[in-house]
Amino acid sequence: MSLLLDPAAQDLLFREARTANTFTDEPVTDEQVQAIYDLVKYGPTSLNQSPLRVVLVRSPEARERLVRHMAEGNQKKTATAPLVAILAADNEFHEELPQLFPHFPQAKDIFAGDRGVREKSAALNATLQAAYFILGIRAAGLAAGPMAGLDFEGVQKEFLDDDHTPLMVVNIGKPGPEAWFPRGPRLAYDDVVTTV
Amino acid sequence: MSLLLDPAAQDLLFREARTANTFTDEPVTDEQVQAIYDLVKYGPTSLNQSPLRVVLVRSPEARERLVRHMAEGNQKKTATAPLVAILAADNEFHEELPQLFPHFPQAKDIFAGDRGVREKSAALNATLQAAYFILGIRAAGLAAGPMAGLDFEGVQKEFLDDDHTPLMVVNIGKPGPEAWFPRGPRLAYDDVVTTV
Repeated sequence: MSLLLDPAAQDLLFREARTANTFTDEPVTDEQVQAIYDLVKYGPTSLNQSPLRVVLVRSPEARERLVRHMAEGNQKKTATAPLVAILAADNEFHEELPQLFPHFPQAKDIFAGDRGVREKSAALNATLQAAYFILGIRAAGLAAGPMAGLDFEGVQKEFLDDDHTPLMVVNIGKPGPEAWFPRGPRLAYDDVVTTV
Repeated sequence: MSLLLDPAAQDLLFREARTANTFTDEPVTDEQVQAIYDLVKYGPTSLNQSPLRVVLVRSPEARERLVRHMAEGNQKKTATAPLVAILAADNEFHEELPQLFPHFPQAKDIFAGDRGVREKSAALNATLQAAYFILGIRAAGLAAGPMAGLDFEGVQKEFLDDDHTPLMVVNIGKPGPEAWFPRGPRLAYDDVVTTV
């Protein structure tokens, strides 16, 4: 059984792509990030909520502030990656729903009254979009280094506000020397998929 | 600025792919699901946690039980899709870490003591994998219909156990007549991406 997606694309996105821990000096441009966004923005979210927000950490001063909030094992790569992005969920995404989901004008009202419901939906859908974004980085011929080892509260205070919850930090660039460990084993199909 | 991923693959996964609300009768085979899994299992998760678990709802009796827990607007499509999958997070994923992340044998211990930490990590990483799975369905030339409009507690009780948290239900098949609404607008780059 083969997939419709051509093997080169399978390799680029999944089979040969790896989480990079070192990077070359080659810069990652805003044009590249825009091309990535213009592809992955089409990935599906509930009611087209599209709650992912991205902070590109470009200035040396901002990079230094971010590195201080990373777990020790993540500091060096975050300090040296060509570009670092903070991915966050917008808990006030419902404000955009009249624009994003015009054929159901009441969609905004469903979320207006309950911040907890919004946070849950924003986390789910922004995390789906974070995965699309990681694959979009690979689609651009770059390596992604997503990290959850960080002080989330510190990153939120330093770079976001109460309405935006950080999900992860992603290093972006061309992989450098010894960029990755040997690939870890994956679970067998029968350990993951059951049928009822 | 163009991406390295070839345009046909961009269309198949993102630009032309749509969330389907109707399906043809053509069956989705276990071989297709296996091919999808064998691609998307390579998508990155924290410490290779790989917490996604999938329940394929194949028997008519199980399908009926699932439909009862779906929101009214999702019942018809869940009843008629060729295949329906429940995607869930395994909150006991740390038991597999010695196998999945062999170069850091202490990884399991980080998670052993705190169920709350495990739940949070499992939700984040299984949701990333859910996005990879949705794109994998598209890579197989099929349409996905992911849904979060359902009684999560009911689905958990009926199909899972206390250690598995449902994330969403996904209809899978070839799109049928009038399978989708016109595509909703997406947010502009500058509304999503900021630079510091």
